Amino acid sequence: MSEIGPAEPWTVREIGPPDEDDGALLQGESIFALANGHVGLRGNLEEPHPGGMPGTFLNSLFEERDLTYPEEGYGFPERTQTIVNGPNGKRIALFVDGERFDLRTGEVRRHERVLDLRAGTLTREVEWVSPSGVQVSLRTERLVSFLRPSVAAIRYVVRAEAELRVESDLIVDEELPPPREDDPRASAVLDNPFAPVSHDDDVLVARTRRSGITVAAAVTHTGADGTVTSEPELIRWTSTGRGEIAFEKIIAYRWPASDDVLSDRDTAARDGFDVLAAEQRDYLDDFWAGADVEVDGDPDIQQAVRFGLFHVLQAGAQAGPHPVPAKGLTGNGYDGHTLWDTETYVLRVLTYTHPGCVGPALRWRHCTLDQARDRARELGLGGAAFPWRTISGPECSGYWPAGTAALHVNADIADAVLRYHAATGDDEFMREAGHEILNETAKLWKSVAYFDDEGTAHIAGVTGPDEYTALMDDNIYTNLMAQRNLRAAELDDEALRLADSLSIPYAEGRQVHEQAAGFTRLPEWNFTDDDYPLMMGHHYLNLYRKQVVKQADLVLAMMVRGDAFTDQEKRRNFAYYEARTVRDSSLSAPVQAVLAAELGHLTLAHDYLAESALLDLRGGGESGGDGLHIAACAGAWIALVMGFGGLRDHDGELSFGPRLPPGLHRLAFRLHWRGAALKVTVTRDRVTYEADGDVTLRHEGKEVRVRAGEQLTFAVDPVDDVPAPPSPRPPRSHA
Amino acid sequence: MSEIGPAEPWTVREIGPPDEDDGALLQGESIFALANGHVGLRGNLEEPHPGGMPGTFLNSLFEERDLTYPEEGYGFPERTQTIVNGPNGKRIALFVDGERFDLRTGEVRRHERVLDLRAGTLTREVEWVSPSGVQVSLRTERLVSFLRPSVAAIRYVVRAEAELRVESDLIVDEELPPPREDDPRASAVLDNPFAPVSHDDDVLVARTRRSGITVAAAVTHTGADGTVTSEPELIRWTSTGRGEIAFEKIIAYRWPASDDVLSDRDTAARDGFDVLAAEQRDYLDDFWAGADVEVDGDPDIQQAVRFGLFHVLQAGAQAGPHPVPAKGLTGNGYDGHTLWDTETYVLRVLTYTHPGCVGPALRWRHCTLDQARDRARELGLGGAAFPWRTISGPECSGYWPAGTAALHVNADIADAVLRYHAATGDDEFMREAGHEILNETAKLWKSVAYFDDEGTAHIAGVTGPDEYTALMDDNIYTNLMAQRNLRAAELDDEALRLADSLSIPYAEGRQVHEQAAGFTRLPEWNFTDDDYPLMMGHHYLNLYRKQVVKQADLVLAMMVRGDAFTDQEKRRNFAYYEARTVRDSSLSAPVQAVLAAELGHLTLAHDYLAESALLDLRGGGESGGDGLHIAACAGAWIALVMGFGGLRDHDGELSFGPRLPPGLHRLAFRLHWRGAALKVTVTRDRVTYEADGDVTLRHEGKEVRVRAGEQLTFAVDPVDDVPAPPSPRPPRSHA
Repeated sequence: MSEIGPAEPWTVREIGPPDEDDGALLQGESIFALANGHVGLRGNLEEPHPGGMPGTFLNSLFEERDLTYPEEGYGFPERTQTIVNGPNGKRIALFVDGERFDLRTGEVRRHERVLDLRAGTLTREVEWVSPSGVQVSLRTERLVSFLRPSVAAIRYVVRAEAELRVESDLIVDEELPPPREDDPRASAVLDNPFAPVSHDDDVLVARTRRSGITVAAAVTHTGADGTVTSEPELIRWTSTGRGEIAFEKIIAYRWPASDDVLSDRDTAARDGFDVLAAEQRDYLDDFWAGADVEVDGDPDIQQAVRFGLFHVLQAGAQAGPHPVPAKGLTGNGYDGHTLWDTETYVLRVLTYTHPGCVGPALRWRHCTLDQARDRARELGLGGAAFPWRTISGPECSGYWPAGTAALHVNADIADAVLRYHAATGDDEFMREAGHEILNETAKLWKSVAYFDDEGTAHIAGVTGPDEYTALMDDNIYTNLMAQRNLRAAELDDEALRLADSLSIPYAEGRQVHEQAAGFTRLPEWNFTDDDYPLMMGHHYLNLYRKQVVKQADLVLAMMVRGDAFTDQEKRRNFAYYEARTVRDSSLSAPVQAVLAAELGHLTLAHDYLAESALLDLRGGGESGGDGLHIAACAGAWIALVMGFGGLRDHDGELSFGPRLPPGLHRLAFRLHWRGAALKVTVTRDRVTYEADGDVTLRHEGKEVRVRAGEQLTFAVDPVDDVPAPPSPRPPRSHA
Repeated sequence: MSEIGPAEPWTVREIGPPDEDDGALLQGESIFALANGHVGLRGNLEEPHPGGMPGTFLNSLFEERDLTYPEEGYGFPERTQTIVNGPNGKRIALFVDGERFDLRTGEVRRHERVLDLRAGTLTREVEWVSPSGVQVSLRTERLVSFLRPSVAAIRYVVRAEAELRVESDLIVDEELPPPREDDPRASAVLDNPFAPVSHDDDVLVARTRRSGITVAAAVTHTGADGTVTSEPELIRWTSTGRGEIAFEKIIAYRWPASDDVLSDRDTAARDGFDVLAAEQRDYLDDFWAGADVEVDGDPDIQQAVRFGLFHVLQAGAQAGPHPVPAKGLTGNGYDGHTLWDTETYVLRVLTYTHPGCVGPALRWRHCTLDQARDRARELGLGGAAFPWRTISGPECSGYWPAGTAALHVNADIADAVLRYHAATGDDEFMREAGHEILNETAKLWKSVAYFDDEGTAHIAGVTGPDEYTALMDDNIYTNLMAQRNLRAAELDDEALRLADSLSIPYAEGRQVHEQAAGFTRLPEWNFTDDDYPLMMGHHYLNLYRKQVVKQADLVLAMMVRGDAFTDQEKRRNFAYYEARTVRDSSLSAPVQAVLAAELGHLTLAHDYLAESALLDLRGGGESGGDGLHIAACAGAWIALVMGFGGLRDHDGELSFGPRLPPGLHRLAFRLHWRGAALKVTVTRDRVTYEADGDVTLRHEGKEVRVRAGEQLTFAVDPVDDVPAPPSPRPPRSHA
């Protein structure tokens, strides 16, 4: 049985062979996935294992399938898109004196996998004794190149005093395990999505049967002799030897299929694994120099925030002009769909840590504007209505009250545009894409909002981030985000008047804001012996009509629109909603961490940080088996930098209000801001700002200017750790 | 091409051969369906016709099928039930000199079908010239016995100067036309639902493959010689002759299968068609004596209200202990499901016109109480939650916001119990079933309602009758019906306090009640060039969040809980909701007719009456092709008796406020009330009450006592016809 070893600063180590029974096999496949945003290889073992979920994910290589409804409705999507397992070049079977190498047989004396966050490689070392007693030593290294988006490479060395045979495959439509049907959130797995197009010893070309996307996969092996056989769905390189076989394998992908796949492969093969690995490290050195977060006092969190940043980078680096899916390219969860958390969580982090990939990711949304305009028309709305779930643009959500009705996704996209522009000054992007996104989404709000007799504007019948409440009026998050969207667009005075008039529901009696109009008057949930997530054991009818909150909604509004609340309001609101929030979404904890930190609940913030940061890495069970929660990966950064660093960016202004929780001695983080690299170092008693260019920011509300090459230090007043308000489901104590 | 001939008082005549292209074939099959509530024969032509929809519906003989959802949710029904086409004994093929009798070939010189509402028979007369020129005369008569619930009979006479051959079938799993997929409201058609069990020359036994219901169908032919062949799915009687073949065919059904089917058949065959027809007429004479409605001045309405009453009787007469489906046994629309309209419309009429069948129908609900209690628990509620759609009791609704969320069905059932008891004094029913239904539904309301800080009680997040508004708080219809339910149950003082505290939302600014809390503050629908029904061209997101009403909701509340509104409130409410109601449900017009009549919009009431009464009979297009709208059939009676007769029954008290519209000279209707037969005759200037037992009632608010055998006459003050308030979709002018 495997486990993730003790925290190391720059590596993630799995010790022992991963077992399928306790979920570690699938979880490990996600944790050790390598990707560059364009091509993703799940961390599958090289040798076939029936308990694994093979995954070679090529961004936006999807198949379509029909959606059917027990009761149809106008505008319900008729089709959905599902990411497919592309041609698998990771698969390498090994035979030792004719016996198949398989961790489930023989004896595993050592099994270790190491993900190196600075090298960008996954290394595996195995000492195995075959059933007939042969000692085998295997070492593999794997990378997906950040610099060569179509290329992956494997270095494979096996040694044993025996006859060795390696069968190294590039395989299309390999057999997949049966889908799990017990969880409504499970994804569809499509059997046999590809029709072969052509094949030779170098390249397989196949086409998805319905969506009609062609893919060309090329492979080559160097360093050892072998023979190649080729079938429509398989290129197999077979090498035999005694004592040792060592080779490098280069795989390249192009979709739609293109002959460039051969030059991609050949260039990489000529350069060889060492060159690819060296440039990978250089790329990551650059990244970390501008993005690293140092955490002194909590090694688990130190490791987890880097692990999270690494996976956020892997999800986004080369994604554009395709989307960044909720699971990145680490699994087929959510069918490989992109949802609102891309803009709200993932791109938020990348804007400050790797802004170069954010523009292309947002341009992807821009590419889908025509579809969004059509969808808005179909919904009887103006402007553009972006989909709740999609791969290539069409709405793929099959349950509209918690999908299409969540119109806030449009303001979330607009907000990401604003943030990116504020942080980078990329005017070209704004001219070519940004302004049009802002304007079309603002038109949506103009069409959906309306004025009551007293001149207050409302948005009726929508669903906010909290999916345990649906189709309410004046969701506060939606209204506040629409307000920002309307103000930022270049429309007319009416849009500004609307923005100023939007209702921000407030319950006078309880002296708190309302998540939506009337929310605080709904009956309370009876929090006793609940199994989480509640949605697995309670009907939406029951959940929707009660004051039970799946995930931060109003609290998220207080983070992203903190400018709209006073400190007193934040404090009262936080306490009220903490008592009703169950965190059945992994999107919740990082946001609660941020507000908890702002309000001085420092230990609570630390616990929420840990919940988010350690979810996939040390979550246990099958958490993340169908792909990492990339937004939760981003959440570690959000909780640290926005929580304990106090980063806010309202109206394009950078501000900080650092405060460390009792357990942390030092927090240092790096940000990109308008071309400059800013470093913020927080200790228990002071904060230091330094940058390689001039940066204007607000420190604790006061505007200051950090000059290039200088250090600006402020004393930090000690903050008392305010006890956590009551919660039905407090986070596990980590701090 | 066929048409329904000019209105006749007691018959419905179709002239010409029905064509499949204009929908007349399917529509005719529904209009001419014969049923007794237990067995239903669609009005299929005897000879096979590929454009028809064969229908032999045996109440609650259903098959199960899986429901799948694009996104699953807890408590979403996994299976649904669909009524199946049972063993068809109507099918009789005819060959004339070897040529198949088929209306689509040769020449149809005469084709007439007559449904006789007093005889309870369908007669068909055909003069046909075969392609090779043989003149053929065919006459068939058909009945489904009200007195012998398992028995149907056909008399068949064909004459031609030719060699004649008749193939008369009893067939299981005959081929059905392909399902229509363009309409979300279309039903599933199950192919081949039966597995054969046994067969001989007399009886076929089959079993539904999944639900496992056995059915035995027996057949015999008398009056002519023939030979019988028998296969697992077919008994065929073949008779040949020259000049004439005349025979009677008796079919009997038992499900679950039982040998009684043979004695049912044999007794009926021994008595013969004439005896069956005579007792059928006697039964209907009795029915009409206590239920007839006479309408002078509008022959179409006169015919339609009797047609409607006849079909309501056919749906309910022998239904118990099975349900009365929304389409009766006339088609497979709504999958043969029973919905809330059974209690709210159909049983309402039967309570006063044929009360003997209402107790058994409500006992069916009582039989499903355990399922309803389980469902309530599943929904996190107390008491019992009856299904929105079902055949045998489980929830079969696949779209919960307009299904399971419509909790009002529970109060509707309770209300039907109260009405039935008030009208009949059937204390035994109350002891055995009624009180438990009242108490369990009241417990549901106790569990779902809650008190706010000011002591007002609310019911949050439910859907009322208007399906263009969903998941709102304090739907006024639901709250008022729950109030009555709570008051009638034998629970505790808390239930009574809750009933008194339930919020009845009122918009002070607009001086109207609100259909649900906040409804009158929602944006208005833009009524321009709309195609109806709106749901076919507008997303629920758009419909739900606007002030557009599919069907009477608050207006229905003003009918069934008229005691909760003042006249002024009714007038203002009616005008407000008329301007927002589009009648995309056939349940709407009769209710609007009743309120229009009460408020003096007499011509409008007449038009709404006509819309409801003529919907299936003269609706054109394919209205009712998949079965009659039995609630709209009941609606004709409701509009006349509750509208122009002014019948109300709040709190078990019978009251009248008659007023005739300009076009009608006289309206007379009969009612059963606590064992007495009451007749009410309304003319332009007076109303006369007479009864065969003492009846206490209110006339225009004043309590009066009608003594057995005496006439009580009151002058009726002339009522001015108040112009109709504006409507986005006024009814077609009929008056």
